[in-house]
Amino acid sequence: MPKRPCVYLAGPEVFLPDAATVGRHKKILCERYGLIGLFPLDNGSDDDRDGNGGPLDRAIFRRNVAMMRCADAGIFNLSPFRGPGADAGTVFELGLMHGLGKPVFGYTNAAGTLLDRTADATRDGETGAWRDADGLLVEDFGNAENLMLDCCLAESGTPIVRADADRPLADLVGLETCLRLAAARLLVGGTA
Amino acid sequence: MPKRPCVYLAGPEVFLPDAATVGRHKKILCERYGLIGLFPLDNGSDDDRDGNGGPLDRAIFRRNVAMMRCADAGIFNLSPFRGPGADAGTVFELGLMHGLGKPVFGYTNAAGTLLDRTADATRDGETGAWRDADGLLVEDFGNAENLMLDCCLAESGTPIVRADADRPLADLVGLETCLRLAAARLLVGGTA
Repeated sequence: MPKRPCVYLAGPEVFLPDAATVGRHKKILCERYGLIGLFPLDNGSDDDRDGNGGPLDRAIFRRNVAMMRCADAGIFNLSPFRGPGADAGTVFELGLMHGLGKPVFGYTNAAGTLLDRTADATRDGETGAWRDADGLLVEDFGNAENLMLDCCLAESGTPIVRADADRPLADLVGLETCLRLAAARLLVGGTA
Repeated sequence: MPKRPCVYLAGPEVFLPDAATVGRHKKILCERYGLIGLFPLDNGSDDDRDGNGGPLDRAIFRRNVAMMRCADAGIFNLSPFRGPGADAGTVFELGLMHGLGKPVFGYTNAAGTLLDRTADATRDGETGAWRDADGLLVEDFGNAENLMLDCCLAESGTPIVRADADRPLADLVGLETCLRLAAARLLVGGTA
């Protein structure tokens, strides 16, 4: 039997009080699609600093990067986190895995576009461009996120999955759609 | 004379009303350190859709990625943008260039840590962990940003440069420190 593909499960749910439970649910769902889910919190305990006594944050970084290098693909929860946009750690990891040439899939549990979610955006009467209260341009491409994120996924052949959910960071509907896409791409005979 | 190294200049200043001017100033500063600055807005006009009539956002994405692949290194303005953290596009590009194995340098023009900038963070009496108003964990490593960003730079040998500035998105003090580090790394005879 061939080795089952591993999928790195990135997202800000690691910051939830019940992060471990959410991670368990995500991994069970992966099993159902014939995939092994790699959840960052399974990466060793906070007391395990790679045996070198170095800073914990550096150890977590190294373990996450090692997990991504070992994974066959990544699925990214790009739901808004403390503001109108996605979690910085998740976004960094999307870029990293794309740079490593691994297949990436992404979902957001927020409805609407980045423009919809940007407070006090108004249209400049002269140029027609949208600007926020500080005068900063707001992208108006109908994307769920900054164009680099949406287009990375779209150019990879699987545009961002938009699922509206009651519990944005933990809901699994968007993940399930991504798992279906990932299984079609990664499993023997997959054609997606 | 050897080809001068090219440095991709990532940051949310592309959203400023005077973005082109800021870009020009950044590139002049690069020259002073013997480097060629590549600014995303020099990537072709908004009317240039790669000649294929496709969507503009996809064309911008492809041009930015091509610029990063061609660059010898990246310098990232990780100053907070519409919230406590860095701009998503910039963070994605940091991950991408790190994944591509290119040297990366980063600065933030905001003082303090991510924890300092997270509104209403309180310490959990039981566990000692910091949580925001939604109960989401706030990292407490003394980092300027999410640990993936800070540690990517620190593990690369050049920790994030913290410069306090009057005009966070456009100030060039942090960039100049990064240029000094980049020049030492990239120019012939460099030792950093």
